[in-house]
Amino acid sequence: MNGTVHVRKGDPRLVSRRMQSPLYIQLADSLEGMISRRSLRPGDRIPSVRQFSREQRVSVPTALSAYVLLETRGLIEARPKSGFYVRAREADAIPSVLRSRPAAKVSDLAHSDPLDLLLSDEYNPDIVQFGSAIPSPEILPGVKVGRIMAAVARRLGPNGSNYDFAPGDASLRREIARRSMAAGHTLGPEDFIITVGATEAVHVALRATCQPGDTVVVESPTFFGLLRQLRELGLKALPIPVDPVTGIDLDALARAFAKTRVSACLVIPNFHNPMGFSMPDARKRELVRLAASRGVPVIEDDIYGDIPHKGPRPRSLKAFDPEGMVILCSSFSKCVGPGYRIGYIAAGKWHDRALALKRVMSMAGPTIPTLAIAEYLRNGGYDRYLRTFRERCRQQVGQMREAIAEAFPEEIRLSRPEGGFVLWCELPATVDSMELFHQGRAAGIAVAPGPLFSSDGGFRNFIRINCGYPWSPQVERAVGVLGHMVRGLAARK
Amino acid sequence: MNGTVHVRKGDPRLVSRRMQSPLYIQLADSLEGMISRRSLRPGDRIPSVRQFSREQRVSVPTALSAYVLLETRGLIEARPKSGFYVRAREADAIPSVLRSRPAAKVSDLAHSDPLDLLLSDEYNPDIVQFGSAIPSPEILPGVKVGRIMAAVARRLGPNGSNYDFAPGDASLRREIARRSMAAGHTLGPEDFIITVGATEAVHVALRATCQPGDTVVVESPTFFGLLRQLRELGLKALPIPVDPVTGIDLDALARAFAKTRVSACLVIPNFHNPMGFSMPDARKRELVRLAASRGVPVIEDDIYGDIPHKGPRPRSLKAFDPEGMVILCSSFSKCVGPGYRIGYIAAGKWHDRALALKRVMSMAGPTIPTLAIAEYLRNGGYDRYLRTFRERCRQQVGQMREAIAEAFPEEIRLSRPEGGFVLWCELPATVDSMELFHQGRAAGIAVAPGPLFSSDGGFRNFIRINCGYPWSPQVERAVGVLGHMVRGLAARK
Repeated sequence: MNGTVHVRKGDPRLVSRRMQSPLYIQLADSLEGMISRRSLRPGDRIPSVRQFSREQRVSVPTALSAYVLLETRGLIEARPKSGFYVRAREADAIPSVLRSRPAAKVSDLAHSDPLDLLLSDEYNPDIVQFGSAIPSPEILPGVKVGRIMAAVARRLGPNGSNYDFAPGDASLRREIARRSMAAGHTLGPEDFIITVGATEAVHVALRATCQPGDTVVVESPTFFGLLRQLRELGLKALPIPVDPVTGIDLDALARAFAKTRVSACLVIPNFHNPMGFSMPDARKRELVRLAASRGVPVIEDDIYGDIPHKGPRPRSLKAFDPEGMVILCSSFSKCVGPGYRIGYIAAGKWHDRALALKRVMSMAGPTIPTLAIAEYLRNGGYDRYLRTFRERCRQQVGQMREAIAEAFPEEIRLSRPEGGFVLWCELPATVDSMELFHQGRAAGIAVAPGPLFSSDGGFRNFIRINCGYPWSPQVERAVGVLGHMVRGLAARK
Repeated sequence: MNGTVHVRKGDPRLVSRRMQSPLYIQLADSLEGMISRRSLRPGDRIPSVRQFSREQRVSVPTALSAYVLLETRGLIEARPKSGFYVRAREADAIPSVLRSRPAAKVSDLAHSDPLDLLLSDEYNPDIVQFGSAIPSPEILPGVKVGRIMAAVARRLGPNGSNYDFAPGDASLRREIARRSMAAGHTLGPEDFIITVGATEAVHVALRATCQPGDTVVVESPTFFGLLRQLRELGLKALPIPVDPVTGIDLDALARAFAKTRVSACLVIPNFHNPMGFSMPDARKRELVRLAASRGVPVIEDDIYGDIPHKGPRPRSLKAFDPEGMVILCSSFSKCVGPGYRIGYIAAGKWHDRALALKRVMSMAGPTIPTLAIAEYLRNGGYDRYLRTFRERCRQQVGQMREAIAEAFPEEIRLSRPEGGFVLWCELPATVDSMELFHQGRAAGIAVAPGPLFSSDGGFRNFIRINCGYPWSPQVERAVGVLGHMVRGLAARK
């Protein structure tokens, strides 16, 4: 056991009074930073609460709160009569997933069949929900939003049955525009069209920019819902490798542009599904510049952007888009609830076409849910709720990583998401994730098999794991069962 | 003044105990039939209440109720100390609109621009709503459905935010299937997919059956929303004449099939918008047979089917479709409210493709409105409400016809709708309905100009008039103002 490590002794204090979150959270965040940068290592003893309070010139209760928070986060542990220590984190020992290496060829999309099974398992209480990327309804604000819906219905009376024609309720578009600044851009209410979830937004974006037979650049891996869109629209996919930290490979993208006529790029720059990275700003800027220089629109799926595990919300590609070449698609499905079907699109140069398409695809959105979400954003506490939700996602992802570290064989690799609530896991090369999918399903455990995330059947030995449900003995057991299955499948070959 | 006309003296009584509506309504309906068949003519004196009760062997209060109902319907009038007389109906003197005569040629669809103006005027309380085909929110059950939504939200708690994945809630599909019999078919819950209004249903149907550049048969005139769908999907329209009583011209259709490769027929067989007819069963059967014999799917927009002005609900084309060649599209927008966005499709042979398309277009419907409509159908009184709603539509259409008869010049023609709530009016040949549209708008009166209903700019001197709002002095005045404008425009040339 090491002696106590002094925390940046003699350095400026860890907290800045100008920062916005409470003091103890700032302190905890700073300590966590030191732990993840390995300035504090597993097994290190950290200062006593009293000592820490002196060093940092904060009250003892504040120092204690910071330690309790770090304990909750699973980063430190109290040992009886001995003080606080940095916890050994097995998950940190798991290597990150690698840069993907899809074949650089355009492909038509085959029907990928476990998808419907996967979706049909959602909300089945007998199934452990590691499959679809959805948070547990228990951690979403459904009760609150339901109450707002009831109040809106009462207030509107007979007018609750009226159309809310596209582009959709102005008060909701104002709320969305108000939050633009946090994403680094300054769109106004008139730039947005309300859609039936991000699904309709992406569909509109693809139809506004592509014709059947056209080729669309996608990240590899990418969210299966996007691949399904391409398939049903008769579009071809051109997969580009992604780096687990910096995102889509821009050199590979430039080469693809040089070789192939591309009609659109379809990417998830923030808290990528399934990889978890958020592209650094410089890479975002370069992506938009590169695409714009070839006249290629960039369709951005930003549904996880509001869920950083810490720090500010990352910028959207739209923040680097002087020419209107980025089509921003998002929704409140991941942070408020998917059942309201409220998404939006800011289609830049394609705004008029997008509006025309929305009008013939569904004409209008569901009036009462639309107005309820607007009110929830305006004064129902969305931003307050989001702070708790982010912390929950961070914790749940961390807990899952630890449990996987314990239960899965050593040769795996695991993503290190900076936001959202999914993990991308590379299993031993001999494991077929489709087999694991079916075995898991038979045992009441859903996982999303890797080939779903590929345009050409790749990622055979990968799975995506949803961490949207609170930690529980049932969840813990399920990870153990999965680990056992993975070992079994790995041994068989 | 004529003497009293005996009502079918010696004939079997007017009512049958086996019929389902209350006795006095049956009596009134039968008398109305005699009036419309001209067995009783304007100015005829009808029997006294006492005499009528004796003749029909019903109680005096029942006989009186029947007379009061006929009076409400505007069919008879009481003259002081003299008894009841058949009212003179000016509207009956107006000739019906004629069979349409579109040029038999395929055309790309041009952008028709007053449409967005028209839609933007909806719900504007300063505008008299003769434009869009919507009932007044005051005569829709919005308050009731809003209450059910509040109860559903409360009951679901956090689960109110869950996805309702396509094909959509089974309880709603069961309710829809239960009502199939009334429309003459026997589809089960598994045959339906819930959609975002009939708009999404028709969009899905067209995409399931056509490729861009294909030709689709439409009625001429037809609902502008359908033409807009074709335009945005890059489809061509082939207009077929319609008869104001029997609907689409089947000989012309057969000739079109012989000459042109047609990918689908898109029709509104029940209470056609804007013409108002409901195709006789024999014609429906023949339409489906003819199309099926050429392998052409028939897309049926049945949103007005639940609103006959009297008698049973007409059958849908699906009732004559042994081979699954009919794609039934409908919604609750016209009878419950458009703002819930609940429609459905029964896509026959194209079911799987329709489901795949729905999944990428919007994935799921709005959960709470979906469940609320299901509950409203199940035990909220939809069927009861529908009886009142039908009678209201009938009355409002009748009142509008009378007011038009009074205010418009003599040379007009007017549709005789059997259901729904719109009128189709041919103005003097010299009147340009686009001019009338703009003049009306400036005076705070919306009307839908004829060219919107044509694929090639036809129907220049037609307008469609929405009768969805209860009769009021404001509505009456607006008809007067419109009539004045029509006379002005007719005189100018």
